[in-house]
Amino acid sequence: MVFVLTISMMNPPANIAIAKPKNAGANARPMSSLLNKYSVVNTPSIFALMAKVKDIEGASSLLAWDQETYMPPGGLEARSNQTAALDVISHSYLISDEAKSISEKIRNFSGYSNDFQDSMFRLYLREYDKAVKLPENFVLEYSRAKTIAIESWKKAYKESDFRIYEKDLSKVIELKIQEAEYLGYENNRYDALIDLYEPGITVQKLIPIFDKLKNKSIDILNKLKEDEKLDTINDAFLKKSYPSEGQLKFSKLVADKMTFDFFNGRLDLSMHPFTTSFSTKDVRITTRLSDNELRSNIFSTIHELGHGLYEQGIEQELNRTFAADGASYGMHESQSLIWENIIARTHEFWTWGITHLRQIYPGSFNNIYSIDLYNAVNVVRPSLIRIEADELTYNLHIIIRFEIENLLINKKIKPYEIPDYWRNKYREYLGVIPPNDTFGCLQDIHWSHGSFGYFPSYTLGKLYAAMLWAKMNQEIPNLHHEISIGNFGVIRNWLKLKIHRFGKLETPEDLIMDVTGSVLNEEPFINYITKKIQDIYY
Amino acid sequence: MVFVLTISMMNPPANIAIAKPKNAGANARPMSSLLNKYSVVNTPSIFALMAKVKDIEGASSLLAWDQETYMPPGGLEARSNQTAALDVISHSYLISDEAKSISEKIRNFSGYSNDFQDSMFRLYLREYDKAVKLPENFVLEYSRAKTIAIESWKKAYKESDFRIYEKDLSKVIELKIQEAEYLGYENNRYDALIDLYEPGITVQKLIPIFDKLKNKSIDILNKLKEDEKLDTINDAFLKKSYPSEGQLKFSKLVADKMTFDFFNGRLDLSMHPFTTSFSTKDVRITTRLSDNELRSNIFSTIHELGHGLYEQGIEQELNRTFAADGASYGMHESQSLIWENIIARTHEFWTWGITHLRQIYPGSFNNIYSIDLYNAVNVVRPSLIRIEADELTYNLHIIIRFEIENLLINKKIKPYEIPDYWRNKYREYLGVIPPNDTFGCLQDIHWSHGSFGYFPSYTLGKLYAAMLWAKMNQEIPNLHHEISIGNFGVIRNWLKLKIHRFGKLETPEDLIMDVTGSVLNEEPFINYITKKIQDIYY
Repeated sequence: MVFVLTISMMNPPANIAIAKPKNAGANARPMSSLLNKYSVVNTPSIFALMAKVKDIEGASSLLAWDQETYMPPGGLEARSNQTAALDVISHSYLISDEAKSISEKIRNFSGYSNDFQDSMFRLYLREYDKAVKLPENFVLEYSRAKTIAIESWKKAYKESDFRIYEKDLSKVIELKIQEAEYLGYENNRYDALIDLYEPGITVQKLIPIFDKLKNKSIDILNKLKEDEKLDTINDAFLKKSYPSEGQLKFSKLVADKMTFDFFNGRLDLSMHPFTTSFSTKDVRITTRLSDNELRSNIFSTIHELGHGLYEQGIEQELNRTFAADGASYGMHESQSLIWENIIARTHEFWTWGITHLRQIYPGSFNNIYSIDLYNAVNVVRPSLIRIEADELTYNLHIIIRFEIENLLINKKIKPYEIPDYWRNKYREYLGVIPPNDTFGCLQDIHWSHGSFGYFPSYTLGKLYAAMLWAKMNQEIPNLHHEISIGNFGVIRNWLKLKIHRFGKLETPEDLIMDVTGSVLNEEPFINYITKKIQDIYY
Repeated sequence: MVFVLTISMMNPPANIAIAKPKNAGANARPMSSLLNKYSVVNTPSIFALMAKVKDIEGASSLLAWDQETYMPPGGLEARSNQTAALDVISHSYLISDEAKSISEKIRNFSGYSNDFQDSMFRLYLREYDKAVKLPENFVLEYSRAKTIAIESWKKAYKESDFRIYEKDLSKVIELKIQEAEYLGYENNRYDALIDLYEPGITVQKLIPIFDKLKNKSIDILNKLKEDEKLDTINDAFLKKSYPSEGQLKFSKLVADKMTFDFFNGRLDLSMHPFTTSFSTKDVRITTRLSDNELRSNIFSTIHELGHGLYEQGIEQELNRTFAADGASYGMHESQSLIWENIIARTHEFWTWGITHLRQIYPGSFNNIYSIDLYNAVNVVRPSLIRIEADELTYNLHIIIRFEIENLLINKKIKPYEIPDYWRNKYREYLGVIPPNDTFGCLQDIHWSHGSFGYFPSYTLGKLYAAMLWAKMNQEIPNLHHEISIGNFGVIRNWLKLKIHRFGKLETPEDLIMDVTGSVLNEEPFINYITKKIQDIYY
């Protein structure tokens, strides 16, 4: 049979009124004036098709969210079948005759257009071209392999034994290699996977940036060692016992101040914190709690809140289109990292925060002042766990993963070699050695999700975040004062105005250029981190 | 394009070894000996198609579960689209050319068969025939209408105002009328809807049974009034304050004793308790808490546990087939009601229960004995809320709903007349009048789910339950002693052996005949309730 869904949204979204930021950069293209004129014969079928795909993806995301939060262990097998069924369906929509006919109309289109339509065409073709390259059997096999790898990762993590995970991870890697082959690449097979997360970025482009970051980070770290500065700051009080209800209370307070909207979102617990959304009006973040780690909960919640605000900030009219997403994974990470690493690590943030910690944990912070918290949360200490890393060494964690992924995807090493490579690189770059796999190569869920090529997004996110932070300091009046009184809403509004609401309509290149007037570069981050280290340690 | 899913389960389930109960009734058909011989050319495609439908239904059930438990309010619109998309997909599978070709092969099949295959054929054709009668547009519209009605029911319930709900409910009723017309019926349009829940049952068959129940219940009630027996039993202590954590603790203890499997299931909170499952290994029940109502939580949890045990007890090999379900809704209700109304209202149950209540609420039950609890939970008191009704008057609640549904579906009354009809019938049958709609016609979520024709299942469930209880008393050695020591597992095992594991393989008629040797009838219930009233009040 011909499979036709008569989804109601047969018309393009009405009333889209996305104005450019007033002080947009040189490359800014005016959009608002064109949107109302938008009229192209075949576009309604684009929107109908995108809506069909997005509805299934939304359902599939709920299956994944539930798997990480509430699903009982026995549910795995059925979940694997359900997820695979949905993955195959959304893929089938994109490879249907209808989708093909739309793609041809777009490619042959020569009429009047506008930026909004251009974006939709670009986003459509990107998804279409990707889908047609992947055989249906591959999609099904890959979906099943991931669901299984996630569960064996959980077991391996608990038992701290990579071998439990090795077979299922190998299967995922094998399929990722196959995927890269299907998708195609010019120089490096790994490029095909990086492109899934950060369009246009390649290993060749990353290596010079990553090299500069690696060298600079190691230089600063060595200087701190030489100057005997490491361990001069007291952060022991962060490791005392802070009952987790209090941590959750503080996190929820931060969520409110960051204006996360609980009418259109939730906060739950999961083993590995993450953010997902089923529409801009149903955005779910998770966090984790540990009584003896104040930082872990607070910073991971703030990280996910940053992602959540991005999702909630996307123009609602973009729901059920391929633009209802972040501009790229790197840009998405910039929105979590600017909060987690930059804003929540200012002295002003803790000027605000300490009064609340004192209320939540009476007595515990009597002799601790905002400056102590500021110093403590900025302590540089080469460590084993990426998501607990300080700002200076964080990129080294990423670069290690990037290097290992590059080797794996190019078949230079085999999966069983991961733990050794991991240990060696941690010793070389950070001077630390994981005592077991849970503190080593099992710490991240990403690979079990098949997210090879994702990790570089974190460092790209840090670079974007530093660029945005520099700009924000010029544009938001009394920024530091606003932070010191907990008025984080002004930052959220700025980010929403400049970044969030556009969703994926703009490419990350255009977006960062429009907002900051510069192309992606590492300078603002290096300036920022150098100054921060100076401020804290000297 | 032709829509083909290459789901892996292309082979029929292996190793099915479902033996008939040893002392099966006269109509019992031996199954086990035939199952291994099962071989029909076209059956693999039946299983593949059923698996496709069930995977989508499982995903759809998760969307519904989430909507009732954790979804933030803003998520509604997207959820409505997602649910509609899945409903249309599972429907499309059933009306596909592939499904049609299977149905034709089944109808023309003349080879060797067996009971297992006959059941699968019957279940397949039932779903297929139903699906082809419903136009795709209707399925989409109906799915959307339900999602919307559920939310306006929630609002109306909170604000105790039927008018908030009237319009959206009217839409659902209109669509149910249309559905009945599509499905077809002989005498009464309402029959088409009842058949969805209890195959073979009609208004004509129900009326004599319901009349006997109604008359008998009202007679007993009037006798109790005449004899001035009402309000002679003290149950005021049940309405004292019992902090809800304790209630939950007790409920979880009962769940464990009933051998509900939390590895393959969950217990959550929702406004209206319900049970759902995404496979026999992921069964979710919900309950509700109120500090001032000890009964509400305990009995509603036990009710849902009964449903949950049925789902968990279905033979695992039946997963992803149309047999992975209860024999009928009436049979499903029998499994919840036998626990809620019969077992949990025995003296022996409270002999066990009181020691635990004393531990959970120290001091509260010092002067209360098991006999007091036994009497209190069996108090007959005509009341407004169905799910809190006693065993005697419960059927009157159902008969009222049955009568109103019959009028609505046959267009004898309009939706706006529901509140008046409701009030009048409650006054007439039960002698009570709802002070507002929340205590009246808004108390049940069913209609917003489109579940017209469902309510009779509760009373059928009570009749089946009484029949099973009588049989169980003959077959389980020391049944009452086992209950008094909390050994509910023996009951669960008996029910699993006799009912659960077969899923939907057998019709309710065959099943009840096999287990009890009788056809559905009201005698055992009337005997049971008469004796119970005598025991408590005289």
